[in-house]
Amino acid sequence: MHQDTPESAESAFYVAFEARDLEAMMAVWAADAAIACIHPLAAPLTGRAAVASGWRSIFNAAGQFSMRVERVHEIRMADLVIHVVHEFLSIGQEIEPRPPIQATNVYRREADGWRMLLHHAAPLQVGRTSTARAATQALH
Amino acid sequence: MHQDTPESAESAFYVAFEARDLEAMMAVWAADAAIACIHPLAAPLTGRAAVASGWRSIFNAAGQFSMRVERVHEIRMADLVIHVVHEFLSIGQEIEPRPPIQATNVYRREADGWRMLLHHAAPLQVGRTSTARAATQALH
Repeated sequence: MHQDTPESAESAFYVAFEARDLEAMMAVWAADAAIACIHPLAAPLTGRAAVASGWRSIFNAAGQFSMRVERVHEIRMADLVIHVVHEFLSIGQEIEPRPPIQATNVYRREADGWRMLLHHAAPLQVGRTSTARAATQALH
Repeated sequence: MHQDTPESAESAFYVAFEARDLEAMMAVWAADAAIACIHPLAAPLTGRAAVASGWRSIFNAAGQFSMRVERVHEIRMADLVIHVVHEFLSIGQEIEPRPPIQATNVYRREADGWRMLLHHAAPLQVGRTSTARAATQALH
């Protein structure tokens, strides 16, 4: 898939994720040894071998699922773009989507297109978006 | 505080955080309208006014606490640096530190020094660093 914009790179990422296609997934990522992938509640996987191994485990463990992605924020620079997205997963026969995952995705412009540098996914507790409530319930 | 390296910007961020000093905290952040701050389990606060308001709420709600920060990964480019850190908070008279918070911090080189563009903090579940276990317990 061509990744001539950050948006097409992001689209390729989620298509590969939903398809559980390891080769397509790793084509989204930069060749950079410093790439980092953080799955919810886990420590970072860094470098292509570890990142690939993480996705392999996830794809092997996962049954059929579908995913809807909503972009909630963008920081756009000439050669680097950061997206914050909410991922809504529906697994197997579940009718109700699960609580969303919030991810920060960083893409960099490379010679041959935009590639992912970092994916940091973490739980987002629904209904806890108010600053004041978040502040009083969790120091940080 | 001078922010002539990403490291000094990060240090200024955590000094301001621990000191609950809103002015010092906001001096760490870029003037960019697109800055984003994600507190654990919360949606992003974007723009300087919302980011400041979030810190004000946290600083008002928080009692005395101390924080130890450990850098676990770095992606270093000429004008942009991404750090993944683990934050260990000890609140009030608690002797045991709380479970760590994992944060992705993005700094950009500006005319007058390095400034924070994004802070994404989220829970890190201790002992869940194994890829395989994370994969089987959480799809993503």
